[in-house]
This record gives sequence, C-alpha cells and structure tokens, in this order.
Amino acid sequence: MKTTTSLSSLGEFGLIDRIRVRFPQPAPPELGIGDDAALLSPSPGMQLVVSTDLLAEGVHFERSFGQLHLLGRKSLAVNLSDLAAMGARPRWFFLSLAIPAGFPLDQIEAFLDGLAEQAAEHGVLLAGGDTCGSKSGLVISVTIMGEQRPELLLRRSGTRPGDDIWVSGSLGDSALGLRLLLKDKGSIGDDATEYVVNRHLDPTPRCGLGQNLAEAGLASAMIDISDGLLADLGHLCHQSGCGAEILLAQVPRSTPFDAVTAGASPTPWQLVVAGGEDYELCFTAPPARRAAILETANSAGVPVTVIGKVTDSGQVVACLPDGSNFQPSASGYTHF
Amino acid sequence: MKTTTSLSSLGEFGLIDRIRVRFPQPAPPELGIGDDAALLSPSPGMQLVVSTDLLAEGVHFERSFGQLHLLGRKSLAVNLSDLAAMGARPRWFFLSLAIPAGFPLDQIEAFLDGLAEQAAEHGVLLAGGDTCGSKSGLVISVTIMGEQRPELLLRRSGTRPGDDIWVSGSLGDSALGLRLLLKDKGSIGDDATEYVVNRHLDPTPRCGLGQNLAEAGLASAMIDISDGLLADLGHLCHQSGCGAEILLAQVPRSTPFDAVTAGASPTPWQLVVAGGEDYELCFTAPPARRAAILETANSAGVPVTVIGKVTDSGQVVACLPDGSNFQPSASGYTHF
Repeated sequence: MKTTTSLSSLGEFGLIDRIRVRFPQPAPPELGIGDDAALLSPSPGMQLVVSTDLLAEGVHFERSFGQLHLLGRKSLAVNLSDLAAMGARPRWFFLSLAIPAGFPLDQIEAFLDGLAEQAAEHGVLLAGGDTCGSKSGLVISVTIMGEQRPELLLRRSGTRPGDDIWVSGSLGDSALGLRLLLKDKGSIGDDATEYVVNRHLDPTPRCGLGQNLAEAGLASAMIDISDGLLADLGHLCHQSGCGAEILLAQVPRSTPFDAVTAGASPTPWQLVVAGGEDYELCFTAPPARRAAILETANSAGVPVTVIGKVTDSGQVVACLPDGSNFQPSASGYTHF
Repeated sequence: MKTTTSLSSLGEFGLIDRIRVRFPQPAPPELGIGDDAALLSPSPGMQLVVSTDLLAEGVHFERSFGQLHLLGRKSLAVNLSDLAAMGARPRWFFLSLAIPAGFPLDQIEAFLDGLAEQAAEHGVLLAGGDTCGSKSGLVISVTIMGEQRPELLLRRSGTRPGDDIWVSGSLGDSALGLRLLLKDKGSIGDDATEYVVNRHLDPTPRCGLGQNLAEAGLASAMIDISDGLLADLGHLCHQSGCGAEILLAQVPRSTPFDAVTAGASPTPWQLVVAGGEDYELCFTAPPARRAAILETANSAGVPVTVIGKVTDSGQVVACLPDGSNFQPSASGYTHF
C-alpha cells in the first residue's frame, strides 16, 4: 500500500532531511547543510568560478511534460554547462526551491533523485540551499561553484580574426524536441523522436571537453549555447570585438534531427542556429590547432566540428547553402 | 513627462543593463556580469563562506506592502545576516529574479536601488545572476559569499554548559510589525508603529558585531534569529548537544514594542521569542568574557544582553516572570 505524504505534513526540516540523505556532504573542515552558511575551501592557486540559473515552471518547463527526474538532472546540467564554458572543474552547488502547496512529495523526490544522479556523475557536492512555499509554480534556483587555474580559464573575449569557429555535438535537437513536446507529439515513440525530446529534457553538459580544451590551452574563447548559436556566438564576438561567418551546411545536425524533419523544405535552420537550449560548446581557436583539438575532443568522447571563421566585421553572418545570408526570425530565446 | 516602460519592451539584456549600472563590478583579474560565470579570488588563507536565501511573493512578502526599495534592502539583509552569524566578511553576491509579465519597471528599479544601497553599505559586490519571466509572483534568489580565517569562524556547534546566552538588539519588533501590516494598521503613522513596521521591512544585519565577536575570539557559537529565538536557539543547542534556560524577563524588547503592545496582558511573549525575522544574533560565551563582549558590542554600536545559560539538559526552557515555563503556540515560522 502506498501512502502519499504531502509536503505540508513533512514540513521544512522533513524536506531538508529528504534532501540531505540523497547528497554526500563536504567533509570537515568544510561544512555543508546545517549551519547559517557553508564553509568551503577552494584549492590553493585556483580561481573560483561561479554561475547561477533560475528555472521557473511555465517559463522553462511545464509540469505536464512529467519526468521530474529529468528536470532534476537538467537543473544542474544548465549550470554545469556554464562552468564547462569557462573550462572550470565543478566542486559545489546550492539548491533553492519554492514549492507550491500540494505539490506531490513523490515528484519532489523524483526531482531530487535526478539532481543527485547528475551531481554524482560530475562529482559536485550539494553544500547548502533554501526551501520555501510558493503561491504559484515550482521555482528552482541553482548556484554552482567550480575552480580552475586563472591562466587557463576561457572567457568569451579572446578570439581573433582568422580563428576557426567550432561547435560540439549537434545543434537543433533540443529546440525540435521542445516543439514536439508543445504539440503533444513528444510521446510518438519512434527512436528519432525519443532522441530529440530527450536532448531537450536531459541535455548533456560538456564538462570534460570544456576542461580538456582549457587545460590543454587550445581554445581562444568559449561560450555555451543556451540562447541559440547565432545569439551566443554574437555575445562571444561582441566581447572579443570581432565578427563571424558561418556556413550553415557545416553546422552539425544529428541523424534523428534529419529523420524527424525529413521532407521539411527548406531545412529548418531556425531550429538549428536559433532554437536554443543546445548546451553544446562554441569555441574558437587558431587553425594550426585543428589536429590537437580533434584529438582532445576524441579523448573526451565528444564530436566537434569547424563551422566557420572569426572575422573583423563586427557582424555574425550565416551563409545558406545557396550562398545567400540566413536571417533568423528571432536571434535567440527571449525570457520576457 | 513620465513614460512607463514595460519589462517586455526592455527585454532581458535591457534589464541586465539596468542592473549593471547600479552595481560596481569586481575589478580585473576578477570578472563579474557578462560571461558564462563569474571569476572570483578569495583572499589567501581565507575560508569561503556561502549562504543562499529565496524570497517568494505571497510567502515572504506581499507586493501590497509597497516599498520595493525596502524589499531590495531586505533581500540582501537576510543573506548578510547569515554571514554575520558565522563571523564572516561579505565579498560578493549573486541575484536571480523571476519577474511576472507586466511588473512595473519602476518598481523593479526601486527594488534594485534598495539592493544597491544595502550592497554599498556592506561593501559587497554583485558578481552575477539570472533573470527570467514568472507565470506568477516575483521570486528573488540571492546567494552571498564571504570569507574569514577558518579558525575564527563561529558555527552553531561549539557551545558548552555554563556559557552565557546573549542576543543583540531587541526581539519581537519584526513579528509585531508584520502583524500590523497584515491587519493594515502599518500606516497608522505614530513613531512606535513606524519603528516596528520598519524593523520588519528593513531589518539590520549585524555584520560588524558578528565579525568583531569572531575576530576577537569571544563567542563559542552563534546563529542569527530568523525563525524565532526559541527555534534558532534550539538549532544551536541541538548542534552543540546542549540545552538552554532563558529568562523571558531578560529578553530585550524595544520601547516602541512595549508602546504598541501596551495594555496587552499578558506580555505577547509569542512575538518576542517565536515571531521570527528578527535578524538579531544569538551567541554563547563563557561568563568570564562578559566585559570584553560588552566592549566589543559597544564598539560595533549594537546593544547585547545576557538572557540565560546553556545547560546540559538537551531542552530549551523559557521561564516566565512568575517562574512557570512558557510554551510557544508554534516554535518557529513554518514555510509550507
């Protein structure tokens, strides 16, 4: 017989206990959950790297998509991706949750299980957080902290005209998966659909690739693709005072993406370069480093592809296969 | 002529610009807003101290209370109070905001102004954050980072039977102020009402006192009072494996508190020791240090009072003036 426990009967400290049991804690002399603040010791000589992301129900996710377990994984993945984009090693994270009254406890536990799974995969420790009620939707705030030697960190600035532009993995899967979910076609069940939906619900942060590129000194600048390639490459170019020219035909698409969009003419470039939530890395490097980069990516188990060149134009130009320029209908995801 | 700009016309990057101009940024080689993550350098030999708090509309605050400027101040104050309770010096903070569509931009700017004011008063720098829409109320997540020499930090554990129990300032003002606000009597306008309402809307984190006590090595354990004295002293005793006996007649009340509650019989002890959101410090120390503690508190400009003794009972007992034991109707604020 299964009994359903409500959050209000469990109480705040009961919930904190349910959180605590799922996560290994920092070892003394460090201090995690249970005091006014966490006490943490970055490694000597390392710079602290910190990022934070807020996920709100109805904005970043719909509870109707179900699978709170995957939402737990994704809540940490989007933060891990920010550290990957700096080339940092993740160490600790903080979790704050605003939970609506009546939210089923088993869904919260599924969320925590997914979060704990992702944390264990990346060796990052939960060091603290906050929980409270919410008059409306579930809100998840994660702050992640990592570290790296300061001279190795990869910023958005640092690229130079003539550098290659690289991306990891394939682009557009997540945006296509979201479109299927919103049309309620996410449960059709063929392998290609399942693949792209999963790329939206359970993105893979490229932590190993980002760290390896930084530690080998191979990239000149790096960013993760969360708002769409054109928008995020635009940020990188802006910070570096450069422009970019990319060839859309070179931008890697997955086989499932092409299978699901087969027959669509023209190719849905909008999804590929402006869909967002890819959580792939976009980085630049002098052409002389191509072989070393391919070897590094291979050892991290992640395919990488050259998609264009950094220019001195100040503009990001995307060339269609026919030689004309692609104009996205929106250059990236807008949050308001 | 005043034009009202909406958040959606401003956009995410417009909002980030409005945030950025209000806050001085970490100086190179550190890095604040504008990359995938912030790059920060704790001082050599210092331990990193981190805390996070989530404030949700309808749970922690009502927009009908107005005064978004004070909400900005309070959002940082509650986090500063956590660092104060460890004896740490604040350095950086991260701000995440989920903002409902149609939220007036001038209210967001008032919020940011209050936040910037509090940040400047405590020398803490905004190093990053996240902004997004909200399908419902305003949600504010702040993560604060400070530092202190590890041997000086004051944890909840560390107290011993026989230690004095101290509190800073006066208790109960904030809970009384909230009660008046909820009864819509917060605008009555006499000085005493204004004082207690302001203690709720604009609490003062005891950063200087907390740091001075830690750096002088005077306290054995410390906690800030956010859930109410009895609840938070209970946490401290639990972590230290001790109990406590406090004399309610010794617990400091403000003159405005007594003026507003005049005629209430019996004294509203519930507000004083179980109301919460006092953001005063509760700490313990051997009796031999009394003179030194009074001198340290005096130099920080904060009154402190001995209210009882740490015991070996494992229980927190609050003695009424007639010698009987006080039983709170709830031992602290419940969040769900």
